[in-house]
Amino acid sequence: MVTAKINILQTSTSLAWLEAAIANLDTILLDHSHCELKAASGAIGLMFRYPRHGQLVKELTEIAREELEHFALVNQFLEKRAIALAPLNAPPYGSQLKSQIRHQEPVRLLDSLLISALIEARSHERLFLLAENIADVELAKFYRSLVKSEARHYATYCVLADTYFEKNIVAERLDQLARIESNIIATLYSEPRIHS
Amino acid sequence: MVTAKINILQTSTSLAWLEAAIANLDTILLDHSHCELKAASGAIGLMFRYPRHGQLVKELTEIAREELEHFALVNQFLEKRAIALAPLNAPPYGSQLKSQIRHQEPVRLLDSLLISALIEARSHERLFLLAENIADVELAKFYRSLVKSEARHYATYCVLADTYFEKNIVAERLDQLARIESNIIATLYSEPRIHS
Repeated sequence: MVTAKINILQTSTSLAWLEAAIANLDTILLDHSHCELKAASGAIGLMFRYPRHGQLVKELTEIAREELEHFALVNQFLEKRAIALAPLNAPPYGSQLKSQIRHQEPVRLLDSLLISALIEARSHERLFLLAENIADVELAKFYRSLVKSEARHYATYCVLADTYFEKNIVAERLDQLARIESNIIATLYSEPRIHS
Repeated sequence: MVTAKINILQTSTSLAWLEAAIANLDTILLDHSHCELKAASGAIGLMFRYPRHGQLVKELTEIAREELEHFALVNQFLEKRAIALAPLNAPPYGSQLKSQIRHQEPVRLLDSLLISALIEARSHERLFLLAENIADVELAKFYRSLVKSEARHYATYCVLADTYFEKNIVAERLDQLARIESNIIATLYSEPRIHS
């Protein structure tokens, strides 16, 4: 197993996740499609909430555009494999992480940025794992093509956090949230998902 | 005044709107920015609601990407003019139109597509009017560059309605909704907006 160590994540993905994902690549692809659309929507949601934050709006516009581009690419892949687009129940990962967002500003923004960073970092780690470990050459090549921009996305969310907040406050909160993120994925979800 | 006749709209924009818009171009530009983000978000919302509608997902992915591209372009324009991004209260146009969406399926989808078509058609008509009638050459050129894709957007929403529903049912409902749309803009909103 080729593994990946992502700076902001506190634990690496388990072999159990990778095995479940490889055994269910069609479902993982479909879930990946949903993840890209949710990521675009999440970025747009932050732009609606913080229209005065010019740097945030500029960076997240680019992220949202790229997520939609990836969404289209994943959907082309699904079409080629005759996997119909369909709803898929979400694992608790996203909602459990988002429940950590504090309600008052400005820390609501801090938490939102760091949680987006963690989700993107985990996506990046797992797409890299899939790229390096699956037998399907075409799919591996596709995942490899996405890995770089996923890394850029989580870096952008971190940079935005550092833009609007003191570096030590960011580091402390990121440490807390990354610990929670690691705890959530410590229990493998019953169904194969990018964030199971 | 150079006017534009858009097929699906039942009345043309009044001279009063154009005069108010020209007298408040900075506010119109800022509102335009919000409109592009709302349009991208609306397209994504429909994709979330109808994941099984492959054609809809494919077309709306492209529309959402283009709206985000326009959003970035309008924001560059705002930056050049030192107009800060900021919230702006919305005119009643969007919410009044959306209140016409019936709750049960499949007509909820029909109404959603036709209302998006009408909003895009009105944007297209008004951006064209601005392009043809404002003195600011740079801004006029910019608006002209957007007009073509705005037209494509409203056409796409109409084509999607015809894809999922009988042509005569689409035509009848479009006629009803276009009448309501015309009634809404018959009263000029107190503040200058793209859809005032």
